[in-house]
Amino acid sequence: MPAPADESLISTSRLLAFAETLLGKLDVPQEHAVLTARILLEADLRGVASHGMAHLVDFYVRRLQNGKINPQPDFNLDSDQPSAATLNADNGLGFVAGHHAMSLAIEKAQTTGIGWVSVGNSTHYGAGAYYAMMALEHDMIGFSMTTGGRLVAPPGGLGRAIGLNVLSVAAPTSREFPYVLDMATSVVAAGKLEIAGRRGEAIPEGWAQTATGEPLTDPAKLHPDRTMLPLGGTPVLGAFKGFGLTLMVDILTGALSGFGTSAEIDAGLTAAHCFGAMRIDAFQPLADYKERMEHMIAAIKETPRREGVDEIRIPGELEHALAEQRRAAGNVPVHPRVLGGFREAAGEFDEPWDLEERS
Amino acid sequence: MPAPADESLISTSRLLAFAETLLGKLDVPQEHAVLTARILLEADLRGVASHGMAHLVDFYVRRLQNGKINPQPDFNLDSDQPSAATLNADNGLGFVAGHHAMSLAIEKAQTTGIGWVSVGNSTHYGAGAYYAMMALEHDMIGFSMTTGGRLVAPPGGLGRAIGLNVLSVAAPTSREFPYVLDMATSVVAAGKLEIAGRRGEAIPEGWAQTATGEPLTDPAKLHPDRTMLPLGGTPVLGAFKGFGLTLMVDILTGALSGFGTSAEIDAGLTAAHCFGAMRIDAFQPLADYKERMEHMIAAIKETPRREGVDEIRIPGELEHALAEQRRAAGNVPVHPRVLGGFREAAGEFDEPWDLEERS
Repeated sequence: MPAPADESLISTSRLLAFAETLLGKLDVPQEHAVLTARILLEADLRGVASHGMAHLVDFYVRRLQNGKINPQPDFNLDSDQPSAATLNADNGLGFVAGHHAMSLAIEKAQTTGIGWVSVGNSTHYGAGAYYAMMALEHDMIGFSMTTGGRLVAPPGGLGRAIGLNVLSVAAPTSREFPYVLDMATSVVAAGKLEIAGRRGEAIPEGWAQTATGEPLTDPAKLHPDRTMLPLGGTPVLGAFKGFGLTLMVDILTGALSGFGTSAEIDAGLTAAHCFGAMRIDAFQPLADYKERMEHMIAAIKETPRREGVDEIRIPGELEHALAEQRRAAGNVPVHPRVLGGFREAAGEFDEPWDLEERS
Repeated sequence: MPAPADESLISTSRLLAFAETLLGKLDVPQEHAVLTARILLEADLRGVASHGMAHLVDFYVRRLQNGKINPQPDFNLDSDQPSAATLNADNGLGFVAGHHAMSLAIEKAQTTGIGWVSVGNSTHYGAGAYYAMMALEHDMIGFSMTTGGRLVAPPGGLGRAIGLNVLSVAAPTSREFPYVLDMATSVVAAGKLEIAGRRGEAIPEGWAQTATGEPLTDPAKLHPDRTMLPLGGTPVLGAFKGFGLTLMVDILTGALSGFGTSAEIDAGLTAAHCFGAMRIDAFQPLADYKERMEHMIAAIKETPRREGVDEIRIPGELEHALAEQRRAAGNVPVHPRVLGGFREAAGEFDEPWDLEERS
């Protein structure tokens, strides 16, 4: 995989070692540091750079450093039923809480067919797809949801009332790639505005609005108080659906965990999640399920296409192909600004620096 | 509630009795006829006329009459686990299968915290909100999904590859009204095109497309082969999200039940569903959950509004208010064309006609 012109290809094994060591210096136990580094790298491998190693220093290291994230959380189950549980994550790293809770959901699904675990008092957990995808190797369908930053206006509203909540779903298919949906319930995730802002580009009408409800096309003007729009964008194109989905995620995460929805938590620092696992053969033999999936995928692939569209892709298909390529190459592209942050942190924490050496 | 100018207000008790008798004449057992009539009427009470009594004759009576729906199905559980089950609905009325399967999901959730039941070999079940809302009186969160008619193109596609699938979610709140999301995963449900067509109105760009992918604005031109668009409409406004949600519903209904997704079933006649129930106090005391919900609702209600918007509504709020009014009035508006179909069926099946008498 060639990297974008301004990015460097960095060895995945060195990136993992770097992140693990750095987290270890902030009192994160080794097992948790290994897990966090792996989950961050998975996002980069899948091309989701906005939720990968780019945030290692500014989101996680800095918050561990200033006490906003607890490096050694004491997880506690507020509730534990045969198919349901609620985890209090003790303000620990969202990655560790997410992995723990999804593992518990899978364990419950092994026994009863379904497991669902809500998590409160947690922090940012990176890309939601990772946790949903944990279900795949167990031949289960996985779900992961999280509260996001309070940046979205409800239809008819002009204020930041609800979060950039995220819904992730993963399911085995008949093909090499799994189905993976990983979506903010807004028209676009905030990362798209950041990218446009860095490039000095206008954003399309329908992504965000001004304080009076006019389309906001200059992404630099979002903060401090303008708003993003729920999926659908305008009422005539379905904004009430995106609004409803945003609330669904809030209800299953922040209300069900008892911790608070995106309307009341400080989503820059804290988060509520939930995780689900459904064992396919609790419903139907796996082979029958896969046969139905193959019919679905084949029908979609065979659909007549617009000019210029070479193939219709299933959600998760392109990310799978990219991850395979990057895994084989053993490196991922890293933006120079991110690399600069790593170098600075290495100096600050007295960590050996080998990320820019040729492997 | 005044009815639209061209509609008549018809007594709900007479409507129920009429529908029950008619279904009984088609060999539907009384208990099933009572249930079907009640579920149809609930949609009318909530203002969802497109999924209520209006379809009694053309969707259900005619299909029972010509053998496309089995009036006396023999339900069978293909799988039955502590939290999961699959029901083969034996081509019976979707209303009866849906009520049966959601009841089973609720029963499982009483025991384990969660219940999830997939249903194959079923038929059209009306408005999905009804089944999700069955969870409410048990202080549970309810889910209902169904395959819909194959009318939607995937992003980049021009053919009818996927269905107008539906996702419904209901959850108790801190207020009198429950949260109820009941959405087609397309930009709009097909009913909106039918209504515009009857009125001779153009539809907005973004709802549907021509055979070459141009915006389709004449709703009369949808059939036989033009396509509706997944929620988001265009890739830049999130169509991949609507596409992903459509597939999520297909996976949880048609693939998980083993019956077939919207890509392969004849969705005009057959359907696959799934139903879920989550017991709130398996996660958190109900009072704590409701406190979080109140914070969420209050924050949304207090959001600054666009000019002309008097209040921001939670999904399900307006439908609840309308249903309360109509229940108190004891009648619902019925379109003259629908009433004409009833009168014709009454004659055909030798049923007494009292729907147009003053009560």
